[in-house]
Amino acid sequence: MNRYKCIISYDGSGFSGYQVQPHKRTVQSQFEAVLAKMHKGSPIKISASGRTDAGVHAKGQVIHFDSPLLLPQEKWEVALNSMLPDDISVQSVEKTDSAFHARFDASGKEYRYFLYQAPKRDPFQRHYAYHYPYPLSIEAMNEACQYLLGTHDFSSFCSARTDVEDKVRTIETIEISQEEELVSFRFVGNGFLYNMVRILVGTLIEVGSGKRKPEEIEEILAKRDRIYAGKTAPGQGLYLWKVHY
Amino acid sequence: MNRYKCIISYDGSGFSGYQVQPHKRTVQSQFEAVLAKMHKGSPIKISASGRTDAGVHAKGQVIHFDSPLLLPQEKWEVALNSMLPDDISVQSVEKTDSAFHARFDASGKEYRYFLYQAPKRDPFQRHYAYHYPYPLSIEAMNEACQYLLGTHDFSSFCSARTDVEDKVRTIETIEISQEEELVSFRFVGNGFLYNMVRILVGTLIEVGSGKRKPEEIEEILAKRDRIYAGKTAPGQGLYLWKVHY
Repeated sequence: MNRYKCIISYDGSGFSGYQVQPHKRTVQSQFEAVLAKMHKGSPIKISASGRTDAGVHAKGQVIHFDSPLLLPQEKWEVALNSMLPDDISVQSVEKTDSAFHARFDASGKEYRYFLYQAPKRDPFQRHYAYHYPYPLSIEAMNEACQYLLGTHDFSSFCSARTDVEDKVRTIETIEISQEEELVSFRFVGNGFLYNMVRILVGTLIEVGSGKRKPEEIEEILAKRDRIYAGKTAPGQGLYLWKVHY
Repeated sequence: MNRYKCIISYDGSGFSGYQVQPHKRTVQSQFEAVLAKMHKGSPIKISASGRTDAGVHAKGQVIHFDSPLLLPQEKWEVALNSMLPDDISVQSVEKTDSAFHARFDASGKEYRYFLYQAPKRDPFQRHYAYHYPYPLSIEAMNEACQYLLGTHDFSSFCSARTDVEDKVRTIETIEISQEEELVSFRFVGNGFLYNMVRILVGTLIEVGSGKRKPEEIEEILAKRDRIYAGKTAPGQGLYLWKVHY
């Protein structure tokens, strides 16, 4: 058996998320179907760095799988890209150590979130950014971020639907910037809890719109309870950008 | 009756083109259905600056319609945008002269075409640019454009499926540029024949790839026959960008 590490991109708008679910079109099921075809019907399971929810995109999701086939990188890439549906593409396939694990070996991740901040909807952004029609203070949001940087218990910024017990994570970088109508959030950290980026963005929007003060973030963190944070921002603005190893 | 001029955008990927066709989802039919609702079921016909084909996008399509309703601009915009499907949006609605005609009064148009020029597919570009995996010389294409500028009989660059007899048009501007993987074509002229921009782009690609020389454009024009030009580039890269009056 050979273990392959594979970097993939997908447009999440046509998927019910990453993970296999009965009767749903998911990234994992589409990818595994292609691998099964390449292996004459033998099932090949893939493991990702983490799941993504319905509508959430990936620029650099990482998966691994084992295969008896020993093909050069280029052959894998061409074969997979010609068979995968056009909303998934393979950036690279590389033979890796048999102990490599896409999830357990990840040392950190980068997520980005995009807001389309303009009074009117843009049909071209509907699947790729969250339309927010009101003014936002980028400065206030950046100020709020200072309380989020570093190591904290992020229980307040985690969906209640999770089994994870240890909710301490480290956020290394948060950058928020605006270019014309597009507001970009960039988060880099050692790991992110379920819905964490979307709850962070939803709460930061409340700061940017003046509904909350930047310093309230410190109190929300201290409460360690989801009900104190803001709304969960919608999935279509979120991108798993990169996985670090 | 009041005549309204309306600038609309649409993502063409979910439409069988602009014009009403039986049992097809088109921009015109969706828009007219919303106007009928606003007018208690009375049909209101819209007229556009021109049709767009299946998959073709519009950033600034212009339509006009007549209505007994006299609403301020802002009310029209909010009402239409709240009722239209999320792949069409209204940029502006303005009360105009009752003699204004979106098609007959247009003095010119701007189209843009986007190529995604990279070895691998990008799932996020699949509906919004034409994936071209080979190298292209922007310089050679720009050289070829010199033969297209000005007033010519563009019969060679017009689909055979047209009733238009006079195929003389004037192209004022063609700009081709590349920013990272995105090659942009910008065409401004007094009018464009059926499939003209897509055939121009298809032919320019053949120049950019080295299959044809820039000076062949002059001969192709002189032939006045569609068979001498290149392939029709696919619809998803094309945008009706602006209509001039």
